[in-house]
Amino acid sequence: MTKKAGSKKEKKVPIILITNDDGLTAPGIRNLVEAVKDLGRVVVVAPDKPQSGMGHAITIGFPLRLHKTHLMDGVEAWSCSGTPVDCVKLAVDKVLHQKPDICLSGINHGANHSINVIYSGTMSAAIEASIENIPSIGFSLLDYSLEADFNGAKKYARLIVEKMLSKKADKHTCLNVNIPKGDVDLIKGVRVCKQAYAKYEEDFQERKDPGGKKYYWLTGEFKNFDKSRDTDVWALENNYVSVVPVQYDLTNYAMKQKIEKDYTW
Amino acid sequence: MTKKAGSKKEKKVPIILITNDDGLTAPGIRNLVEAVKDLGRVVVVAPDKPQSGMGHAITIGFPLRLHKTHLMDGVEAWSCSGTPVDCVKLAVDKVLHQKPDICLSGINHGANHSINVIYSGTMSAAIEASIENIPSIGFSLLDYSLEADFNGAKKYARLIVEKMLSKKADKHTCLNVNIPKGDVDLIKGVRVCKQAYAKYEEDFQERKDPGGKKYYWLTGEFKNFDKSRDTDVWALENNYVSVVPVQYDLTNYAMKQKIEKDYTW
Repeated sequence: MTKKAGSKKEKKVPIILITNDDGLTAPGIRNLVEAVKDLGRVVVVAPDKPQSGMGHAITIGFPLRLHKTHLMDGVEAWSCSGTPVDCVKLAVDKVLHQKPDICLSGINHGANHSINVIYSGTMSAAIEASIENIPSIGFSLLDYSLEADFNGAKKYARLIVEKMLSKKADKHTCLNVNIPKGDVDLIKGVRVCKQAYAKYEEDFQERKDPGGKKYYWLTGEFKNFDKSRDTDVWALENNYVSVVPVQYDLTNYAMKQKIEKDYTW
Repeated sequence: MTKKAGSKKEKKVPIILITNDDGLTAPGIRNLVEAVKDLGRVVVVAPDKPQSGMGHAITIGFPLRLHKTHLMDGVEAWSCSGTPVDCVKLAVDKVLHQKPDICLSGINHGANHSINVIYSGTMSAAIEASIENIPSIGFSLLDYSLEADFNGAKKYARLIVEKMLSKKADKHTCLNVNIPKGDVDLIKGVRVCKQAYAKYEEDFQERKDPGGKKYYWLTGEFKNFDKSRDTDVWALENNYVSVVPVQYDLTNYAMKQKIEKDYTW
């Protein structure tokens, strides 16, 4: 941050809250911190264990623990026993004691495009921030490998965060950003998209435990039912970074009109 | 179901899948089954323990268990070790081996209006069904008491399910239905609404365990920032049953347009 001698308007250092759903030990969160740490005061509050698929779960039947921890030099970091959404709530109330200027979540290991947004702890943390009037972005890289190449994800994460901070984004802004796998130089750019109607067709594997009792593992095949070119799935298949603005108003207004017309009560 | 002698078109008995997030022992699910059990073949697949606040969580790191159980005479019932969303997925794949005609979730003990829809396991089960092209309804009664009066909730649950079945509702239909607390005769009718911008302002209580270490309990005060009269909160405050159609496309289309206009990448 530059400081002009004698200037009354000092540039405020933005507070950047970072969380994820893969937990504090995941390479993704470390890469996200590295990508943006010189853009403001970074504070990390993240789950103490993997929380993938936790959606918008919150902890209401149990108390939560919060411990100061070390992630990397010069960065304040806390580990939380709860879900990604719990992390955002606790960070605001008990760590920052104020709302950050932006909340970032990720970088998730694996895609959060299409219907995945609804199951994703990474995206639910970002959505929770936007409910709290904090502009937010969830980042996901389409690569599950522990040795994944994060250069593309870091480059575009930084670019998008810089833009959001410089434009003073609307407080309800929540972006779902997915980055294609592979070499940064192969990425063609950024596309603003809608969420594709694409989802997993579930098929539970049935197994027997050593005592002969049945149990089930969730498996599934990903299917894209949406052939339009303005979706996140299309963008990613064509090596663009996909950016989907996300909302927490779940009202289906078209269906509301239809029901008002078709039904009498 | 009536059956006409000699008629080739026999009326198909609808399959009604019922789940909840309060678990199989909650009075709410029993009341929901009682309200609709003569409208079709009711099959219950519900969590074996309370799952409130689980949102759209799914179980991906652990296997799931499913056991046949007894809820009431003449009704097939299964208990599942997973979340409400897991229950819907497992019910379709491993219990029914087909999609039901409708999926009902509840009756939840406590409100799921406004932003609660996003944290609610009850509503996430209903949303999951609609993702799977199964019309669905989540029901919630604004009364936490174990001795709550379910007469109003039962009356309106039956009315709305009958209408959905008779109209052959659109497969993506998902309704969030909340019923006011108190005497059924005081309920003024049904209002189709939008989700209010109303939410909890969180405040974690800080306590110390017997070892002197801090822990936090989530508490909060409910605040309604939305004064319009077409919201679920307004309807319930004025003793109407609120019906909000819910969608799983989280794309914020207005924000998408704005970002396409305002940002260059």
